[in-house]
Formats: sequence, C-alpha cells, structure tokens
Amino acid sequence: MTDEISQHIDQLIRQEDTPDDTSLPEGLDDLEPDQIALLLESLPLDARQHAWLQVPHEVQADVLVAMRSEARESLLRLFDSEALDQLTADLDAENLIELAESLPEEVVDIALARMDQRQRHYYEQTASYEENQIGRYVDHDLLILPNNSRVRDALRLLKRQVPEYTEHLWLIDRDGRLTGVVAIATLFKSREQQMLVELCSDEFDVLEATLELKDATDRFELASVAALPVVSDDGILLGRMTQRLAMEILHETYESQLMATAGLDEEEDLFAPVMRSSRRRATWLGINLLTAFLASWAIGLFEGTLQEVVALAVLMPVVASMGGIAGSQTLTLIIRGLALGQITTANVMPLLKKELSVGGLNGVLWAVVIGIVASIWFDSAAIGLVIGMAIVINIAAAALSGVLIPVLLEKLKIDPALSGSVILTTVTDVVGFVAFLGLGTLILV
Amino acid sequence: MTDEISQHIDQLIRQEDTPDDTSLPEGLDDLEPDQIALLLESLPLDARQHAWLQVPHEVQADVLVAMRSEARESLLRLFDSEALDQLTADLDAENLIELAESLPEEVVDIALARMDQRQRHYYEQTASYEENQIGRYVDHDLLILPNNSRVRDALRLLKRQVPEYTEHLWLIDRDGRLTGVVAIATLFKSREQQMLVELCSDEFDVLEATLELKDATDRFELASVAALPVVSDDGILLGRMTQRLAMEILHETYESQLMATAGLDEEEDLFAPVMRSSRRRATWLGINLLTAFLASWAIGLFEGTLQEVVALAVLMPVVASMGGIAGSQTLTLIIRGLALGQITTANVMPLLKKELSVGGLNGVLWAVVIGIVASIWFDSAAIGLVIGMAIVINIAAAALSGVLIPVLLEKLKIDPALSGSVILTTVTDVVGFVAFLGLGTLILV
Repeated sequence: MTDEISQHIDQLIRQEDTPDDTSLPEGLDDLEPDQIALLLESLPLDARQHAWLQVPHEVQADVLVAMRSEARESLLRLFDSEALDQLTADLDAENLIELAESLPEEVVDIALARMDQRQRHYYEQTASYEENQIGRYVDHDLLILPNNSRVRDALRLLKRQVPEYTEHLWLIDRDGRLTGVVAIATLFKSREQQMLVELCSDEFDVLEATLELKDATDRFELASVAALPVVSDDGILLGRMTQRLAMEILHETYESQLMATAGLDEEEDLFAPVMRSSRRRATWLGINLLTAFLASWAIGLFEGTLQEVVALAVLMPVVASMGGIAGSQTLTLIIRGLALGQITTANVMPLLKKELSVGGLNGVLWAVVIGIVASIWFDSAAIGLVIGMAIVINIAAAALSGVLIPVLLEKLKIDPALSGSVILTTVTDVVGFVAFLGLGTLILV
Repeated sequence: MTDEISQHIDQLIRQEDTPDDTSLPEGLDDLEPDQIALLLESLPLDARQHAWLQVPHEVQADVLVAMRSEARESLLRLFDSEALDQLTADLDAENLIELAESLPEEVVDIALARMDQRQRHYYEQTASYEENQIGRYVDHDLLILPNNSRVRDALRLLKRQVPEYTEHLWLIDRDGRLTGVVAIATLFKSREQQMLVELCSDEFDVLEATLELKDATDRFELASVAALPVVSDDGILLGRMTQRLAMEILHETYESQLMATAGLDEEEDLFAPVMRSSRRRATWLGINLLTAFLASWAIGLFEGTLQEVVALAVLMPVVASMGGIAGSQTLTLIIRGLALGQITTANVMPLLKKELSVGGLNGVLWAVVIGIVASIWFDSAAIGLVIGMAIVINIAAAALSGVLIPVLLEKLKIDPALSGSVILTTVTDVVGFVAFLGLGTLILV
C-alpha cells in the first residue's frame, strides 16, 4: 500500500512544481477511497486541491468520510454551492453522519431533505447517539427477516446481493426488536420448510448502542465475528458494527493517544495552514511555559548558591533529565495499563512498590556513576555527593509520580496521555532542582 | 470488558493478602482466553501464579499464547516437567509457533514429535518465515476444495463445522496452489451440478507469505473481508489471515510505538521482576545520561558568564523546555506521517517549510512574552533581549530537527519512535544553551 501511495504523492507534487507538464499522473481510479484519502492528506494544500479534481465523482463522498476532519475541511472550504449540491445529492445516512461535523448546518438540512424516507429515518436514529457512542456509527447493510420466517425465505434473501462481512441473518419481531441470529452456514443443514428460529443459537452477542467506542471494540474483538448487531435500549435492531468500523476505532484510539503525548489532536492535518497550526500549538507551548517558569522560580530560590558554586548550574540538566526520563518510563507503562484496563484500586499499591524498587536501584546505580564523574570533572568530592543524593531523590520522586499522576488523572477523567507528561516533568524538574540546589546550599556553601 | 476484568483483579489480589479466606473468587470459566491473559498480566507475580492454577486446562495454551511474552515467561518459568508435558501434549502448529520463543528448545522438539503429521507439516511451513512476516502466523481453519469440485461438494463440506470468519471457500490445484475463491453466498444461486470454478470471481485478493505484518494488515483492511488466503512464493495456499490476527497486529504495532517513546518494549511486563526491569531501564537512562552530559558540557563552556550573570542560570530551563516541546510536536506529527506512509522525498521540503513557518511564528510570539517577563523579573531589558533571541533560534532549530531527525532515522532503518525524541532533546538542549549563554556572553558580559 505505502509504496503505491508514495509514488502517487511524489508524482502529484512534482506535477505541481512543473505545471507546464500536463502529462497527468496515472489515474486514481485504481485506488480505494481509504487510499485516496491518505494520499490527499499527504499533499501540501495546493497539490491537494488539484489532486481532488481527479478523484472520481462516485467515490468523492467515501473519500471525504475517510479523511481526518481537518484535512477534509481544507477541501470542503473550497466547495462552491454547486459542488456542495452535487456532494449532498446522494449521501446516505452513514456518510452524512460522518460529514455533518464538517458541513454548514444548512447543507446538512438540504442533504436530509433530499434523502429517501428510510435513509432519513436511519439518520435520525443514529444521530441521536453521542459522538463517542457506537450507535452513531452503525451501518445498515443488514440481512434481516421477520422471526416467523422459514429457511426458504432466507434462501430467497441470500440469492440477492449479500453485503460484505456477512456470516449471519438477523431475525426481528414486529417492533423491530432483535430476537435471534442465524448462522448462514447452518442453512445448508436444514430443510426448506424449517422455521429459522429453530436454527438460532440460544445465546448471541449484541452491542448496546450506548456503548463507548472503545468498549464496543473490546466486545467486538472477543466475539470473533465480522459483524455484530447493535441495538437500542429497548432492543430495537439499529444496525451493525463491522470489522471495518472496529479497525477504524482502533486506529483512531491509538493515534490520538500517540498525538496526545505531544499535545496534538488526532485530526491534526500534516499540512494544516500555518496560522491555524501555530495558534493551536501556541496553547500547548504556553501551558508548558508556565511549568518552565515554575522550574526557573525553584532555581531562583538558590541564586546565591549558584553564584558561589557555578558547577551546580552546569550540572542542573543532568539531575532534571534523569528524573524526567525515569519518570516517563513509569508513566508510559502505567498509561498503557490504564488503556488496557489493567490497573485497579487493588494493584496500584503493588505497582507503586515495584516501581519504587526499580527507581531505587537505578537511582543508586546512576547516583554513583554521576557522582564519580562530577567529582572528577569539578575536582570536588562534595559536588559528587550532592549530585548523587539529588539523583536518588529525583528518581524516587519520578517513580512515585509516574504511578500516581496518571492514576489520579484517570480518576478525574482527564486524559493521562495528554497531560501526564507535562505534570510529571514539572514535578521532576522542581524536585530535582530543589533537591540538588538545596543540598548544594547545605553542603557546599 | 474492563469492568469485569477489574473486579477479578481486585478479588484475586485481595485473596492474596488474606490467604485464610478460602472463598474462591468467581471462576474464570466465564472469561475468554484473551481476557484471562489480560487478567494474569495485571496481577503481581504471586497473585498471578495463584490465579494461573485456576485457569481451566483446556484453555491454558490459548491463554499463554494471548499473553505478552514477558508475562508469559514469568509463568512458564515455574512449570515443572510434568506441567510442560501436559502443556505440549496437544499444542497445534499455530500455538507452538507462538510459544516456541518462550520454551526451551528441547520442549519444542518434544511438542513437535507428539504432533500429528499434518500439524507438523504446518509448523515446518510457517516456521520457515521470519518473525515479521505474515506467513508465520497464518491459521489453518480453511474450507478448501480441489478445483474440479462441484457445488454439491461445497454443500457437503459446509454441512460440517464451518470455522469462524468464513465467507469464502478456496479452490486449490493438485500441488496445493490457490486457483480460485468462491463466495459462500453465491452457492445459493447455483445448481448442484455446477462447477465451482464457474462461480469464482476473476480477481481475488491474496497475501504473499513474505509480506511484513504491517503491510499485510494494510492490505487486509482494504480487502473488506474477514479472512484472506496467504500463499507462498510459488502460489501454494499456506493458510489464512483473519480479522483476529489483523487486530492483534494493529494492537502490537501501536503499542510498541507508544512504549518506544519511553525506550520501553511492547512486551514489557507491568509486574516484571525488579532486577530485570531495573537492568533494562538502566540502559535507556544511560543513553540519556550521555546526552545530558553533552548539555552540561555546553553550559560548562560559559562558566564565567554564569558566574557574572546568575539570572542566566535561572532562566536556562525555559529556553531548553520551549525548544523541547516545540520540537516534540513536530516530531510526533512526522512520526505519525512516516507510520502512515505519508512522507516521501517529494513532500519533505514543503513540510519543512510549513513547520519552520509555524516555528517562526510561535518563536516570535513566545520570544516577546518571555522577553518581557524576564526583563521585568530581573529588571534588565538586555536579559529580555537575550532570552527572546535564544527562544527564536531554539524553536527554529526544533522545527528543523523535528522534521529531519525522524526522516533521516527512517532512511537509516532506525525506529524514529524509539530514538527520535532522545536525539531531538539533545539538539534542542545544546542549541538552546549555546544560543542563550553565547548571546548572554556577547551582550551582557
């Protein structure tokens, strides 16, 4: 996949630089909507706009749906009313739900008005769920039969188009409630006259529409099927969650965790406009500046000491950075544990004990190494002693905060992947500087 | 899932603390192997060993396979020869491949010797592929028929057990080469006498067994099916890649990326023994220490200046940290782009231009803010000027390195998620300190 896409990227960018060369790149027709979306996201804004013109009409909606919202909006902003009109002409409920956040409200209304009744009904049903609930993202490619149907009815249904990810038929009662699930494979062992209910297994997996996306995905993975029915509170079959949706949610969950470690959003566009990108990043830099000033303030408490023993100023980064690194290792391990649901009230204490032991061992080890290096460098055993003790204190503080900060943030419903490392670094900076310069004041001055 | 698991975790740990309380927790029988694996990984070593005794025999192999290797090995280390004997008694090829890395070679040999011929053949076939190739992890739950079969043969086959994730039958020639794929749904529209080859679509997706895991998963996602055939170089059908495997690979890929940002391994056990864990983390701390000493060395060049203007020592963390944060934002964006295959030779230049512009804007903005704060704090416009200029220089350097470091690492086949941030921080620390203290020497001394 990547090789194919990167050839397209190179070609489209080169074309941009030499506009006289009108030889079109190989068409995008051989690419899937997901690939075209990735390709468009990889292009600088000008090239992206030109490439968009080559996207075949019939896949445009799917491509926009597959794009991250920011990159998608960089294209939609250029749509004139005619293009918007064309786009909304045949959106189905699922695509409209995905695009709605990026479209002006009146355009959504127009799209809704143009939908047939069934699609509008689907839209209204799913749009009533929150953005983090699985009910919002179901598809409607269902093979459904009334629960008094027979095998021959099923066979008739299966002779028509069978949607992808289909291993089962679903039975509903008059009110649309899901009453049973029939594995298509069992039809081969049954008589045409047989009632389908007789083929249903006693238990079947369903997902409640109000499940959070990540929980739905966990349940989906355990079920070992390519699609699961999603039902409302009162058991009405709303649609299905497929493997495609499960994988999409996985990608988004992990990506937002990775991006959060740098204060970025999963939707961040690689080629976001400079102003927009600067403004957003400025916020994160500003938050971080406050914590940096806090560290400076801590150092400022010891100005007198620094003036007398300038070696302390030289060695400050070593103390801060050892604490920061040790802390981020613990933090990362705990954040993964929280994401996996592995960390409970009962195992925080044993974890803390383990991390403190690991920190203690490494603290002593590196205190000795750094102490010796510093003693030789500045020809003073006292400086070695001071930095060694500071290292032990800071690495222990790092282990403690590396466990407790993410656990507390999680309890406060704040994403530990986003704010964990800022808070941790503040702690290890301040503790490190105060320990180091404080001990320096006591011992060296 | 998480709630259910965390109740079990709490119960098992509390039981450990009060061993007199013999009331067993609710059995593990209602949990899937994947859940039991997660549960065991969440327990401190003692509790983990006790909980293992409650794992039903028939799922023990599956549970071990589902565990991360380090946690798995913490259990296997305690197996006596009888337990190992029992475990290997009925391992199939797929489970043995997964467990082989954690088992002594002679145990693998015994397990192989006890396998039936077919499983041994599967094992030898798949074990010939590398650890990062998809061929190694295929399963063998295949519905296969000779390519001269008729619909009635297919119906006979489907009346037996149908494996999960099955939407197709696969046709092979005499040598075992995959020659066609029949959608089960098409059987409903055909006569019993019809040849299956007539029902095959002209094109079908296959995965080459030598594909790297991540590439295989990309291809799998595009195919929109629950399972894909995996073939050898000469077209022999080796087995299949299912949705389960694709999701496992996704989890592992992202998790190792997340863990790598802190120099940790995806297999790292939450409750690894203290010594083992300390030793491993010591390496990362050691690498980082070298870079911290480099920063100290840079500061050491300006000892004289620091002695005269102690304010510079106080403000050093601000310069370093603003550069570090700005750089890590760019770095994270680029690492994601590389992982998605979005970054090519042609778009590095436009990306660099964009990131330098964003860095320039933010550099100037925060230079002014920090300059004013520093001027007031130390009552010296000159200090404000020095730190402002240093901030602009360091944020620009951060943008430049944030783009170039991961791109170069990728070219050198070094994982940018692992080493990118260490190198980046070294650059922003050294550039920041030299710029700040150098300008301070020129202007303030």
